[in-house]
Amino acid sequence: MTIMYESRRARVAALLAERGVTALLVTRGVNVRYLTGLVSSNAAVLVRADASAVLATDSRYIETARRDCPGVEVVQERDVAGALALMADRPAIEAHDMSVARYRRLGGDLPPVEGLVEAVRVVKDEPEIQALRTACELTDRAFADVVAAIAPGMTERQVARALEARMMELGADKPAFDTIVASGPNGAVPHHSPGERPIERGDLVTIDFGALYGGYHADMTRTVAVGPVAGWQRELYDLVRAAQRAGRHALAPGAAAAEVDAAAREVIDAAGHAAHFGHGLGHGVGLEIHEDPFLRPAGAGRLDDRVPITVEPGVYLPGRGGVRIEDTLVTRAGGPELLTRTTKELLVL
Amino acid sequence: MTIMYESRRARVAALLAERGVTALLVTRGVNVRYLTGLVSSNAAVLVRADASAVLATDSRYIETARRDCPGVEVVQERDVAGALALMADRPAIEAHDMSVARYRRLGGDLPPVEGLVEAVRVVKDEPEIQALRTACELTDRAFADVVAAIAPGMTERQVARALEARMMELGADKPAFDTIVASGPNGAVPHHSPGERPIERGDLVTIDFGALYGGYHADMTRTVAVGPVAGWQRELYDLVRAAQRAGRHALAPGAAAAEVDAAAREVIDAAGHAAHFGHGLGHGVGLEIHEDPFLRPAGAGRLDDRVPITVEPGVYLPGRGGVRIEDTLVTRAGGPELLTRTTKELLVL
Repeated sequence: MTIMYESRRARVAALLAERGVTALLVTRGVNVRYLTGLVSSNAAVLVRADASAVLATDSRYIETARRDCPGVEVVQERDVAGALALMADRPAIEAHDMSVARYRRLGGDLPPVEGLVEAVRVVKDEPEIQALRTACELTDRAFADVVAAIAPGMTERQVARALEARMMELGADKPAFDTIVASGPNGAVPHHSPGERPIERGDLVTIDFGALYGGYHADMTRTVAVGPVAGWQRELYDLVRAAQRAGRHALAPGAAAAEVDAAAREVIDAAGHAAHFGHGLGHGVGLEIHEDPFLRPAGAGRLDDRVPITVEPGVYLPGRGGVRIEDTLVTRAGGPELLTRTTKELLVL
Repeated sequence: MTIMYESRRARVAALLAERGVTALLVTRGVNVRYLTGLVSSNAAVLVRADASAVLATDSRYIETARRDCPGVEVVQERDVAGALALMADRPAIEAHDMSVARYRRLGGDLPPVEGLVEAVRVVKDEPEIQALRTACELTDRAFADVVAAIAPGMTERQVARALEARMMELGADKPAFDTIVASGPNGAVPHHSPGERPIERGDLVTIDFGALYGGYHADMTRTVAVGPVAGWQRELYDLVRAAQRAGRHALAPGAAAAEVDAAAREVIDAAGHAAHFGHGLGHGVGLEIHEDPFLRPAGAGRLDDRVPITVEPGVYLPGRGGVRIEDTLVTRAGGPELLTRTTKELLVL
């Protein structure tokens, strides 16, 4: 494991050297974790262009840092950024993370850098993909164990809590994000918070959830039907499923993010639902539930190999309901690896 | 509920008027929630000194905002800060929240303000205290239901997962933070992450956890003993319990934060353990698990009435173990209201 963190710091150091930056003061918690393994609400790491590094944290985490983070110098300090800023000659700061207030306290003149560690994080190493694979397996298993119990009268909230409890019993660290269960007309709200609405016969129910395992976030959505399925519901489901398939098939190392989005979006547009798909097609997952790259109409850049990413088109009909189908996959040269393996046949409960 | 949010915005507006600020661009998610009720990963609210407000969010949350946030103008925009910055004459920004990058994109010259909404949030209204009371009840009940099952051979992780699953069964939204279960020598690490260590006879086990309910965070720690209790363990427990009692008794509207810290710390210092209590005595809780005010040796300011706060002294002996005892309370003129009601007798399992 030590070697993995050293290799990550070396990749960051190489970028710093390339840009002529002597050191980067990494303050973003998830980046500190990525580069050292330390999970802390108050830590920062200074990575120098020669790949040496200093980790600062306070008394609550210092023993853990000393024990679990070999290969970096460890210093105990409450003001972690202030302490590390003095240990290099004008280190660059993470401008997308550091607050204006903290920046001003450091003098307000350190060179700003954006997204450098995030860029390194896009392509995952195999231990990361393995953690994500496990997270997705736990997600699949929880869905399989809970879905059969969904019935009219059960509230959205009960379905959400059952999925979350099951994931944790199976070994998840916790839910990867706040579970969405959106039934009937609530399905028209992409990020609906599960409430006290009882599920009714004839509802479509969109369930968007995932397990967190070893710091990595699974993300899966399925829309299921309760009771008889109306014609418009089946039609909507088949449309979203076709769009999702088109999106998955477009995923490849070298593909432009905007083109992958377009592959799915064109299917929905052609059916006259362009206005009912208001979000991007997908996003990277890893130590964050939403991270680079983003699949959007205006998305820039091309996909790399070994990039975990979601494909999640949806169609939302205000007042009536909606369908979203989402998988987590990993880009691979031979075609994407599907991590969430729950069926995409319409389940009628 | 509408009235509650209006009243909060009016308190912010009054502070703005007092400082001669025309408007505040609130970007911090938890502050947006406090002022509008909207829970969103991409929203901001502009509060003007005349108490009018504009809420911006993207397509994912716009329906919820329109439905649930009466009394504010709602605009749909992905770049929420950019859109709102144009709707006032040089609005102040939340300098403790806004990133350097975002600030520069807004021109880099908007007046910085720190902690204004947070200052309003310190004193809770009764709906907030009721939510916290419920969160603490769920925490107490989960502890009571799970503690009896703790036995030698169970891992720290299993104890943590059992507590979390039970809280959610009982109706918690989710755990308020990552549960800490630290057994035997791991008890010397204040924020130990529960791992695969099996609990052994003769261990002290420190359990720090809480429920999230309606957005409000309960926080409770108990140290329990498994099997026979050694003399030094009993002594340490009694010491921390006495310190915790002293801290609770010092909690009162008008008390200086540093004095409350000192009341507990002196007990530990007098026993020769000054070096083994390396963190502050407590912190406010509410929409955040750690928020103002902080009880620390160098803590500034005095406590108000109706401030939920933790009291959590600990003594940590490297290589041997530790004890921490923590309650969530609310300051009240007639003496603090204890929200976490689990016994502080040493439980020997």
